[in-house]
Amino acid sequence: MSFLDIVLGKPLATSDERAEQIGTSAGIPIFGLDALSSAAYGPEAALTLLIPLGAAGIAYIVPVSASIIVLLTIVYFSYRQTIAAYPGGGGSYTVATENLGTFPGLLAAAALMIDYILVVAVGISAGVGALVSAVPSLQPHTLALCVGILVIITIVNLRGVREAGIAFMLPTYLFVGSLLIAIVIGLFKTVLAAGHPTPVVASPPAALPTVTAVSLWMLLQVFSNGCTAMTGVEAVSNGVRAFREPTARNAQRTLTVIIGLLIVMLAGIAYLIRAYGIAATDPGQPGYQSVLSMLVAAVAGRGWFYYVTIGSVLIILSLSANTAFADFPRLCRAVAQQNFLPHAFGFRGRRLVYSYGIVVLAILAAVLLILFRGVTDRLIPLFAIGAFLAFTLSQAGMVGHWRRVGGRGAIHSMIVNGLGAVATGTTLVVVLVAKFTAGAWVSALLIAGLVATMLWVRRHYSQVALETHSSSPLEVATLGPPVVVVTIQEWGKIAQRALQFALTLSPDVRAVHVATEDETNALQEEWKNVAEDPVKKAGGTPPKLVTLSSPYRLILRPILDYVLETEKAHPDRQIAVIVPELVEKHWYHYPLHNQRAEMLKALLLVHGSDRIVLINVPWYIEA
Amino acid sequence: MSFLDIVLGKPLATSDERAEQIGTSAGIPIFGLDALSSAAYGPEAALTLLIPLGAAGIAYIVPVSASIIVLLTIVYFSYRQTIAAYPGGGGSYTVATENLGTFPGLLAAAALMIDYILVVAVGISAGVGALVSAVPSLQPHTLALCVGILVIITIVNLRGVREAGIAFMLPTYLFVGSLLIAIVIGLFKTVLAAGHPTPVVASPPAALPTVTAVSLWMLLQVFSNGCTAMTGVEAVSNGVRAFREPTARNAQRTLTVIIGLLIVMLAGIAYLIRAYGIAATDPGQPGYQSVLSMLVAAVAGRGWFYYVTIGSVLIILSLSANTAFADFPRLCRAVAQQNFLPHAFGFRGRRLVYSYGIVVLAILAAVLLILFRGVTDRLIPLFAIGAFLAFTLSQAGMVGHWRRVGGRGAIHSMIVNGLGAVATGTTLVVVLVAKFTAGAWVSALLIAGLVATMLWVRRHYSQVALETHSSSPLEVATLGPPVVVVTIQEWGKIAQRALQFALTLSPDVRAVHVATEDETNALQEEWKNVAEDPVKKAGGTPPKLVTLSSPYRLILRPILDYVLETEKAHPDRQIAVIVPELVEKHWYHYPLHNQRAEMLKALLLVHGSDRIVLINVPWYIEA
Repeated sequence: MSFLDIVLGKPLATSDERAEQIGTSAGIPIFGLDALSSAAYGPEAALTLLIPLGAAGIAYIVPVSASIIVLLTIVYFSYRQTIAAYPGGGGSYTVATENLGTFPGLLAAAALMIDYILVVAVGISAGVGALVSAVPSLQPHTLALCVGILVIITIVNLRGVREAGIAFMLPTYLFVGSLLIAIVIGLFKTVLAAGHPTPVVASPPAALPTVTAVSLWMLLQVFSNGCTAMTGVEAVSNGVRAFREPTARNAQRTLTVIIGLLIVMLAGIAYLIRAYGIAATDPGQPGYQSVLSMLVAAVAGRGWFYYVTIGSVLIILSLSANTAFADFPRLCRAVAQQNFLPHAFGFRGRRLVYSYGIVVLAILAAVLLILFRGVTDRLIPLFAIGAFLAFTLSQAGMVGHWRRVGGRGAIHSMIVNGLGAVATGTTLVVVLVAKFTAGAWVSALLIAGLVATMLWVRRHYSQVALETHSSSPLEVATLGPPVVVVTIQEWGKIAQRALQFALTLSPDVRAVHVATEDETNALQEEWKNVAEDPVKKAGGTPPKLVTLSSPYRLILRPILDYVLETEKAHPDRQIAVIVPELVEKHWYHYPLHNQRAEMLKALLLVHGSDRIVLINVPWYIEA
Repeated sequence: MSFLDIVLGKPLATSDERAEQIGTSAGIPIFGLDALSSAAYGPEAALTLLIPLGAAGIAYIVPVSASIIVLLTIVYFSYRQTIAAYPGGGGSYTVATENLGTFPGLLAAAALMIDYILVVAVGISAGVGALVSAVPSLQPHTLALCVGILVIITIVNLRGVREAGIAFMLPTYLFVGSLLIAIVIGLFKTVLAAGHPTPVVASPPAALPTVTAVSLWMLLQVFSNGCTAMTGVEAVSNGVRAFREPTARNAQRTLTVIIGLLIVMLAGIAYLIRAYGIAATDPGQPGYQSVLSMLVAAVAGRGWFYYVTIGSVLIILSLSANTAFADFPRLCRAVAQQNFLPHAFGFRGRRLVYSYGIVVLAILAAVLLILFRGVTDRLIPLFAIGAFLAFTLSQAGMVGHWRRVGGRGAIHSMIVNGLGAVATGTTLVVVLVAKFTAGAWVSALLIAGLVATMLWVRRHYSQVALETHSSSPLEVATLGPPVVVVTIQEWGKIAQRALQFALTLSPDVRAVHVATEDETNALQEEWKNVAEDPVKKAGGTPPKLVTLSSPYRLILRPILDYVLETEKAHPDRQIAVIVPELVEKHWYHYPLHNQRAEMLKALLLVHGSDRIVLINVPWYIEA
């Protein structure tokens, strides 16, 4: 059993694949995880921006959350229709490409890719944020914890998550359940205390205000940050095909439950934050505590319930990264099949997953985590841009779809999706403007760069296809025998074998030998005896010996030059270069022999031409 | 002009070489540098071990230095004779091999190699020690300074030091001159003050004694450390050939001056240390100051003279590392020519120097410097073992030489060299025992390991020579045409060209195609049309299409298995595997194409056999 087998599992045969068919209860964790887990960082992202207002700022969380919930409701109705219209899976890339054209499709794809990378980075960093809130002594190890979790998730995904649904169910319901219980207890206590409950564990007091008046600009920023709570909502529409019959109906029901739960959680969290007067703490600093941690501690104290809730937050956030690991490779594969990304994204690895996409996602997320030192708050400004661009393009695509399809109810559907497109589009502009200097420009730039790259990749593939394509039959031309060049260091069995093979190829064989300072003319002297005469005797054309001088003691350069000259001198023939190579049996013999054969092969490949064929005659040493 | 040209200089032609012929004044810096610079760390190494005795320990430096000077005198007379007997160059390796046999020769070679590596590490670290004594704020950057100087010396040596003599002359004479002046001033002041001179700048007071009585064991340790002052003495005898006529006489004169200067410096330093009561400071700690720095400051104050002296120490110590860079590659080359080291040590690089040896030395010295954090004191216990083992073997070899040569004066010469052998041998045992646990075991182990490696290398080369050697003429056997296996992904120009070449090789051509999930049966359907029929029409044997199934979606493994099976099935024929390869023009196209051809070539080479020949038909894309 190899190391790879242990880490990644035994390879799976293509025939081992089987279709999964899921219902609503399994669909909620699988497709809702990303969306639901947003509740763990969305409110916090908004609240953090209210720190400068001090205690007075906390109340603004309620109207901001209310507007986000309205937006969420619009998006919900919009996606319901997408599910009905695309029962085969209506991801933003598909919908935008089919209805708006190639360029909007690529834009949606690029936006989603950036979004997925950020989901991984934000999910993991927010999960670790929850962990270090519960165990403050881990705070200095934030980045290491982030990278560690990333590695585990990557390995799990390379193994392939076949029973993902069941594994996801427990933590998802635990998270939703414990958060809902905390909200209910909190609401109950608030009502009993006439709106002013006493926290069980008091959260740190709000910082002193540094800004006295709230500005519209500030509220737009807070709203933009809060919009991160909406990421992941599109997941159900991507994966409609995975549901059992009636497919669209089951998917819609799942979407309804997910959005419903998300709205309840966002509303409850916002209300309790105001009731308990919880102010955000400065992220990335010692003493940092996540808002959810303070909220649950205030409502229920730091008992077992607290630790169960925070534990479920950590798990759910890490698993939300997992959603991106499922979606990113599939998206890349779809794009690669249209030649917009390297074809490698389309190969399934040993465990039937698209390993290349998984590895690329892991590397990019790791780069983000390391650049931003694993602090969620620093990543938030980059976020949401991708998600809302994809939302907008998808909804706009749906408007186009209804116009094309027409028929009864088309106008109604167009209005619903149109409203969705306008709402998400407006939000996109707000987020882009509000967060531009804070980091949204990075996302915008990345999306633009990605689209440009995809167009460039497609162009390259088209050109290569044009160059190499041919459906005409083989031309059995009167291809003359090649000019054969054999490189020889000294006379011996290795040279003999190479020459023997050369003589079967062509009557025009040239043994090339580089004269260096250390070598004698031995080869020249014995050549007639050992090579020319035997061939003449057998009636063949004897091989010529070409001695190349090397004033600078280089071995490879003179051979390369000779081969290129020979190629020029014979424009109508192929040049076959035979490189005899001594192959070591053990790696530790490697430094004992020169690697000239390997280097010559590489050099000839780089500097060669279509008419130069490389022949490698290996000699395996037993010693 | 390439980057390499700028860093390493333009390549030199072999014919550019010219013999250098030097006299005594140039010989002293070139061959004496290593020996003379030892005065900068030898006394300090001894004094450091006297720290535990406090102020009372300082006086012991005088008798210890005296015994080292006696030893040095014996070695001097011994090496004078070696020079006379080996005017062609009598390095320890040569003398020991010729007179004592292969194994003692290898032992001497290994000892010298370890010694050279330590000379580099100790020279540089002691030089930096002098620098940080003068500029204490540099102390935290000790290691970085060491590595930086090592890199510069390595590059200079890779360029080749052609006018080395002149470049070395100034700093050597500056060092010797300023140190002698300091000694003379010090002696003068001491005599004037009746043995108790007042230091211009007081050195830090000696630490409080932690040990009250001095033991013989302790003095042996001090002596062992002090013996490092004798390293480098053998250099003249190695390079006799470089002197102008009368060769041996000039070399002997040079040796006399070098040893004379060294003795004067050692004696003067020891006397002044006692007179001024200078105690060593703890090396590697803040506040560390080298003994020479304290001595010069005490004698002459911290004026311009101080900085000139310390500057010359830094330069001379760095240059002493340079001596090893000249000798180590030459020694390795001599050993490699006897097949005891990889042959690569014998190739001269672009600047006519043995680049491989230079690079290996630099890497090993860097490892030492990094492991010991650039602190001389920690390296000292490893030192001297190698030098004294080489001394002993060389002198013992000379005894054998005189016995062989016989004649008038042979007895006298034998006695001189015998005395040298006994004195250095005894010292070797003392140093080995005294320093064993402190680090001499490392050197002993390294020397033993190196000898074992050299024997192993020679055995391997002999076996390979046995396997591949042949002086018999070419057998123009009736070598049948090979079985040709062509790997094909899809029909197109690339496949066409590979097949065309295959058909010129053999009538038995098999096109191998791996069926993966994404591919259709297109190739199988069109094969008759595009490949079989045209060949039949031209009267040839049509190529067969072999479709390999791949349940695990692997591409390379099935091809490899097929090739190995084919090889087994045809034990009397060669198997030619033709691998068509798409070669990218630009590096940034690399990720866009699979690198299967490269991987297949590597796989076939590793798993292949002598009967499998690899043919690479490249296709260069223009896009």
